[in-house]
Amino acid sequence: MSTTRRQMHMGVFVLGTGNHTAGWRYEGAATSHMQLPVIQQIAHTAERGKFDVLFISDSMVMDPSDHPSFMCRLEPTTLISVLSASTTHIGLGATVSSSFSEPFNVARIFASIDHISGGRAAWNVVTSSNPKAALNFNRDEHLEHELRYQRANEFVDVVRGLWDCWDDGAIVADKTTGRFIDADKVRTLDHKGRFFQVKGPVNIARCPQGHPVIIQAGGSPSGLELAARSADVVFSVVQDLQAAKIAYADLKGRMSKYGRSPNELAVLPGIMPIIGASDAEAREQLAKLQAWLTPTNAATLVASRIGYDVAGFPLDGPVPPPPPLRESRTFAHVLYETARREGMTLRDLYNLTAAARGHWVVCGTPQGIADTLEEWFTGMAADGFNILPPYFPGAFVDFVDLVVPELQRRGLFRRDYQGRTLRDHLGLARVSGSMPRRNAVGEV
Amino acid sequence: MSTTRRQMHMGVFVLGTGNHTAGWRYEGAATSHMQLPVIQQIAHTAERGKFDVLFISDSMVMDPSDHPSFMCRLEPTTLISVLSASTTHIGLGATVSSSFSEPFNVARIFASIDHISGGRAAWNVVTSSNPKAALNFNRDEHLEHELRYQRANEFVDVVRGLWDCWDDGAIVADKTTGRFIDADKVRTLDHKGRFFQVKGPVNIARCPQGHPVIIQAGGSPSGLELAARSADVVFSVVQDLQAAKIAYADLKGRMSKYGRSPNELAVLPGIMPIIGASDAEAREQLAKLQAWLTPTNAATLVASRIGYDVAGFPLDGPVPPPPPLRESRTFAHVLYETARREGMTLRDLYNLTAAARGHWVVCGTPQGIADTLEEWFTGMAADGFNILPPYFPGAFVDFVDLVVPELQRRGLFRRDYQGRTLRDHLGLARVSGSMPRRNAVGEV
Repeated sequence: MSTTRRQMHMGVFVLGTGNHTAGWRYEGAATSHMQLPVIQQIAHTAERGKFDVLFISDSMVMDPSDHPSFMCRLEPTTLISVLSASTTHIGLGATVSSSFSEPFNVARIFASIDHISGGRAAWNVVTSSNPKAALNFNRDEHLEHELRYQRANEFVDVVRGLWDCWDDGAIVADKTTGRFIDADKVRTLDHKGRFFQVKGPVNIARCPQGHPVIIQAGGSPSGLELAARSADVVFSVVQDLQAAKIAYADLKGRMSKYGRSPNELAVLPGIMPIIGASDAEAREQLAKLQAWLTPTNAATLVASRIGYDVAGFPLDGPVPPPPPLRESRTFAHVLYETARREGMTLRDLYNLTAAARGHWVVCGTPQGIADTLEEWFTGMAADGFNILPPYFPGAFVDFVDLVVPELQRRGLFRRDYQGRTLRDHLGLARVSGSMPRRNAVGEV
Repeated sequence: MSTTRRQMHMGVFVLGTGNHTAGWRYEGAATSHMQLPVIQQIAHTAERGKFDVLFISDSMVMDPSDHPSFMCRLEPTTLISVLSASTTHIGLGATVSSSFSEPFNVARIFASIDHISGGRAAWNVVTSSNPKAALNFNRDEHLEHELRYQRANEFVDVVRGLWDCWDDGAIVADKTTGRFIDADKVRTLDHKGRFFQVKGPVNIARCPQGHPVIIQAGGSPSGLELAARSADVVFSVVQDLQAAKIAYADLKGRMSKYGRSPNELAVLPGIMPIIGASDAEAREQLAKLQAWLTPTNAATLVASRIGYDVAGFPLDGPVPPPPPLRESRTFAHVLYETARREGMTLRDLYNLTAAARGHWVVCGTPQGIADTLEEWFTGMAADGFNILPPYFPGAFVDFVDLVVPELQRRGLFRRDYQGRTLRDHLGLARVSGSMPRRNAVGEV
């Protein structure tokens, strides 16, 4: 196997009850997002499948009619920290919102997990789209979309700046001379921006990866700029190959103005694989899951994913268009465009959204699914995939046991890890303490 | 052994390089607060010694002339989360400041660790006394002392209120009916206070302990009120038996007005044990550590511990009194009173502070140290102790191998754990979801 051949990168999106809203009802499916052994088993399976990264999403709102794993969950950073103890190679990503945290705290937490895990930490930067989240953080209203992204840009700069306060080798700890630290290798940050004022330095030494990996998922124009400028991995939302190719080229094309090469960013569309011994069997499995949806949870999911309320519109009529102010929100846009193109009713959209929360459902045999993934990968619509199994552990075990070997036989995916850090898996260099800072604070 | 006999509770205060500023220079001592295996070994030793709790301190400032473990450290919540994987019984306490965090985030993090660890999480509530911390959090100046404690009181109320949003058994997950949650067992909080406005509910189910244990260390009048009202464990700063008895009675006496019984709060004075085969050998060990102190680190430590700058005062002259405005700050008060009572020079205070950062140094044989601890414990000056080994692992291993068995022989300390949660070890009941809230939000 040539080491230079382009290979896929794989992430798994962990929701304990499964990514399908009703996945927990499947025979043998885990019913809780709160049980550590369930998530430890998912992590083991992902590592057996040589995945790049396991990824814990988050939300800041408890809504009893939402997806089960969104109403009740372990906190992502504490969860990936403990997962590091029972894994050795897989990258561990946790979501933390830039809208409801402080950069100093976030910089410490991810540097700390990177030390604890031996270089496997990733921060999924989100801005939190659910307006109700603001009510848990001393506000009556959430920050407006553009402002959230401006804050996120500055937030990421400050966090990276704090990671860069320390060069390697600052801790000397010479017992004979009593010299503990080489203070010349630690600098203040002295950031004064629009949203943040942070002196630094952070109180944690430079971490194994230099910078933990940055993951980003937003697909709006401001989200794409944030990703092009700062992200190492993008989880994208796509439903259609042609649209995915255009989105892929668009995002990669935005990177050069930030001095970055396209291969410094892995684009991983989210897909929900439904695997059967035949296409018919796979479709049956999906139908079984879909039959468990209720109008209530479907309506809540549609509203929370597309960001506008569709209650009151007839279920068997067309999908109402998003309000103009929200058109920049990609999830809403992609879903509405899909619905319009395919002549879907609101009920159809309910079903689609409830299945995979707007992500792409790929139904078929292991070979058929591998064909589709290969077509997307070689067609430059993706650098790999973020797998959203409809339920755990069965549907994910099937992917690892049936689809991964097929991709390996085709030379499209690694047969074993080549390095130890998440940056190694992604083919990204460690961010060294002495290199010039690409996105120096204040250069926005 | 009678189960009703009062027994000590024991905590260990973990600083990777040792609690003595120069402890890392000792033969065989660990030199880093960044290496997980070092802290895992400490945790194993503590569990072998049947300690109630292991406790990770924190600071929000990196000062290269500070104690080595304060300038560079793993972040406490991520650290105790991963420590839960390699331990089975010991309580795991992490420090998080109420001045630089959001209650919703803190409530989630500690509930999450409590789930992950099977009921062993403790939150050490601090308000962060170092004024430089504010500069890392968008402020030019830190909140004034009283305001910090008012914020801390409300912060703890909101966190507890969020933990109380969930009753036990809210997650139903009935695969047959499709009913996932019993929404009647989850409530909003609707807190609107002076500092915080938090709607809730939190998005994590009620945790094994009901409420993670609350630790508090402040000794000012407002700190004592916070402790009397909300703390399960207090780490106190004492140097003198009579003063400790008075402080103990004072704190316990404040509890009744909050409807609490004195045995619902464990008072654990911090002590640094220096253990030798003879008193002379112990004194030699201390002298060796003290000889490694430098004026620079001593001066920084004094300033950071007593909260006012003593630079410029003659080293061999008397200790300058604290400024009137700061007299309520107990650390400064205790240290100044000790210095005045014992006729110490500023140099003496340097040495004392640098040794144990103001805590009480107990030097002697295992029997002698056990005698002192017994006298304090039976004399109602303490419910147990927070052990600050001068270096790790040796000095802590000595305490566990030599002093703990002596306390066990005397029936003063458990020979094994009787339960599985930290509340079990402390003799505290689980906080049930249906009991009336003692400190209901708004009843301050």
